Amino acid sequence: MVSEQRRNNLLLAKSLLSTVGPAGTVGDIRAWLEKRRAAVAVDVRLTDFRSLREWRFEEESGDLVHESGSFFAIRGLDVHAEGGGLRNHWQQPIIDQPEVGFLGIIVQERDGLLCFLMQAKIEPGNLNCVQLSPTLQATRSNYMQIHRGRAPRFLEYFRESRRHRIWLDQLQSEQGGRFFHKRNRNIVIEVEEEIPPHEDFIWVTLGQLKELMHFDNTVNMDARTVISALGWRGSDIIPLLRHAGSARSRALLASLCKEEYEPRHLETLYWLSELKTRYLIRSRLMPLDRVSEWRVREDEIVRDDRLYFRVIGAEVTISNREVARWSQPLIQPMQEGICALVMKEIDGVAHFLVQAKLECGNLDVVELAPTLQCLTGSFRSGKPEFLEYVLAAKPEQVIYDCRQSEEGGRFWREQNRNMLVAADRDFPEEVPENFRWMPLWQLRELLHFNNYLNIQLRSLLAAVNILDV
Amino acid sequence: MVSEQRRNNLLLAKSLLSTVGPAGTVGDIRAWLEKRRAAVAVDVRLTDFRSLREWRFEEESGDLVHESGSFFAIRGLDVHAEGGGLRNHWQQPIIDQPEVGFLGIIVQERDGLLCFLMQAKIEPGNLNCVQLSPTLQATRSNYMQIHRGRAPRFLEYFRESRRHRIWLDQLQSEQGGRFFHKRNRNIVIEVEEEIPPHEDFIWVTLGQLKELMHFDNTVNMDARTVISALGWRGSDIIPLLRHAGSARSRALLASLCKEEYEPRHLETLYWLSELKTRYLIRSRLMPLDRVSEWRVREDEIVRDDRLYFRVIGAEVTISNREVARWSQPLIQPMQEGICALVMKEIDGVAHFLVQAKLECGNLDVVELAPTLQCLTGSFRSGKPEFLEYVLAAKPEQVIYDCRQSEEGGRFWREQNRNMLVAADRDFPEEVPENFRWMPLWQLRELLHFNNYLNIQLRSLLAAVNILDV
Repeated sequence: MVSEQRRNNLLLAKSLLSTVGPAGTVGDIRAWLEKRRAAVAVDVRLTDFRSLREWRFEEESGDLVHESGSFFAIRGLDVHAEGGGLRNHWQQPIIDQPEVGFLGIIVQERDGLLCFLMQAKIEPGNLNCVQLSPTLQATRSNYMQIHRGRAPRFLEYFRESRRHRIWLDQLQSEQGGRFFHKRNRNIVIEVEEEIPPHEDFIWVTLGQLKELMHFDNTVNMDARTVISALGWRGSDIIPLLRHAGSARSRALLASLCKEEYEPRHLETLYWLSELKTRYLIRSRLMPLDRVSEWRVREDEIVRDDRLYFRVIGAEVTISNREVARWSQPLIQPMQEGICALVMKEIDGVAHFLVQAKLECGNLDVVELAPTLQCLTGSFRSGKPEFLEYVLAAKPEQVIYDCRQSEEGGRFWREQNRNMLVAADRDFPEEVPENFRWMPLWQLRELLHFNNYLNIQLRSLLAAVNILDV
Repeated sequence: MVSEQRRNNLLLAKSLLSTVGPAGTVGDIRAWLEKRRAAVAVDVRLTDFRSLREWRFEEESGDLVHESGSFFAIRGLDVHAEGGGLRNHWQQPIIDQPEVGFLGIIVQERDGLLCFLMQAKIEPGNLNCVQLSPTLQATRSNYMQIHRGRAPRFLEYFRESRRHRIWLDQLQSEQGGRFFHKRNRNIVIEVEEEIPPHEDFIWVTLGQLKELMHFDNTVNMDARTVISALGWRGSDIIPLLRHAGSARSRALLASLCKEEYEPRHLETLYWLSELKTRYLIRSRLMPLDRVSEWRVREDEIVRDDRLYFRVIGAEVTISNREVARWSQPLIQPMQEGICALVMKEIDGVAHFLVQAKLECGNLDVVELAPTLQCLTGSFRSGKPEFLEYVLAAKPEQVIYDCRQSEEGGRFWREQNRNMLVAADRDFPEEVPENFRWMPLWQLRELLHFNNYLNIQLRSLLAAVNILDV
């Protein structure tokens, strides 16, 4: 048991530090992705809802539902929220998808190097058309094969996951502002047997995945959330590093240590209990056609002031070897957003500034979110905390700055700016009550439990790389 | 930080082993409770719903609601459940109380002994009329003082809990079969300043609380859930024990060690992720007057077959120094239930057999429950696993066997048989897939996170005592 864990840790550390793998360099992987893009034609036409095949507005509720009764639906949500001195009531459309889907990656030791089997996956809403995705992305309807059609490739490995070595198996939340209590199963399994090659799949190292995240809209959201939970450890990495590293990298490695575990960790949990009591969120599904301040039109469901997002209909045709055609609703954001995580060295240890954020679709009141998570442009009730600091960061403070996509299966060309920012010396250690500094090991520890870190924070943690700081 | 933790651990261990405290012996505490009972007159009259002051059936939904719109309500719940090969759909009434209340205990070092400030509390549904309760039991409406009336005694300490030393601060679930997503804040604070004595309050040790749990319906549910999370540790207790103890007590002490933490603990979390994916629960509030198989009558809401429970109306008058009068709905169980936890020594370490149980009001699909948790008498779909084993346990196997009450503020004279049973050598280590053996430290570890252990399991863990095994 323990020695197996040790082996896994070492493999993971080595994979993190390897930027060349069985598929060559990061440049080779990008060239391969380009080829996959060229091999496929995607045609997405925005259309009115009446033309969506297999979708209809439910008579009683006006909800936009799939004929099978499963898959997902666009319903209304009535929200009462209290917290941070604010008391709010609003209604909005929400994606209701109560099923837990698979986001699964197969890993395998290849030439002594732990590699991840990634897929060049087309999603209708994707910027860039094809992005690097987990080995398997499947809704419960997919894998229970409620819909007609082939089982997704490699599903069988995950259906019998216990035959393989489990590296990770967690339920993680998705966008709390868009989904109602949605979760996916983030799972990584190590398969021993030979896996037949397939033109849409490629073996990459963890280090390569992290490097690929430096390119806009290349590694998809589902891949980012899965790799965010991989627990590479400072003690395994230090012996593998060729040089001593910068002060920042030493601080980051130090933030992976577990010392003084219990008291500090419990304090964080107590802080969350306090906030989850003082904050209140009461979200109830309601008929879509009675949602106030929103209009259901022929081809869009939209707020009167056209803020936040709208729901649109799309007809999708994807042609490569064969032609697939379907239609579905998509969510289109009305603004770009920004998610930034501020990192600061406190007593020689890198700490990340996270906030406990109330979102209407959260299962458990608040989840930990990045330092800054907001739409850009319009701010209803004043500017968000730390916005100005992040936007004014000097180049040497910016560790990471890319545009990353949200899930292309639900969101239409949605991308958000993702940033890791090193705080300067003057940045206050004292922060508002709903913010907290946490070392990396603690964020990872919380990640092992359900519904503690939101998808935006996990996406940023996926980008944290010892080679970058 | 660490040395403070060490001090707390030692204080807790000593308190656990002390059965004499500032209020004398356990016998003295019981005599005091009797006196409190004698000083109060409680009159509860069952009445039709129309006579309930401040309560009404909501026009649109038929839900039974409080006029203030807060407090709690009896609504309908529509449940789809899948799991363990079963697929069920049913509807039932449910208590909807979205607010998080306080269950708080003040502790204090008195003559070098950690003592708990407990209250002799009257609840309308209580068997025994008065039971030993936390220092503070308050709904959010209580403590936000939405209703007119005095603030509950000692509330001010908990409102500003951060001025005191936090021993515990967790959100914990309540009965998933009766409440919809209900949670309370279980909180223990150490107050340094002198607390004025009051006739309804008494200082007791942890050891005394555990001994008092050997008497039926004496320590209330709220007190049991709070003390279940207190982490007394084997390493602190061993030096304090006067004798070597039995094999069983050594095994129990061993089960408090954290060795091999990470891999085993993660395996448990993976097991839960697997079950939370394969099981599905979809509960939606619905109008009470449309719940199928149930009837709303003048004086009861009841199933056609009169199984499970019924909702009744009560008019309550409590007289001691002053007279309090109110009316409210209560839940009356139709059968008694049994909750049993089986303990077995595996490799010299005591393990407890828990099951992942699907309940309709659960926030997160399944929670860990005792080995056996069921109604006695009628079994719809065959006898529950391990029922016969528990009922046939020999006297020397029975570590603990008492009747314990559910919360008297909501439940009418509800008591369940609580048992700790030591498995014999032949009891299989191999168990069904939704069951798992766990050492005590691991259950405690999970207890620190929300919604992992259900109230029935926590109640039994509260009864686990090194002095009993």
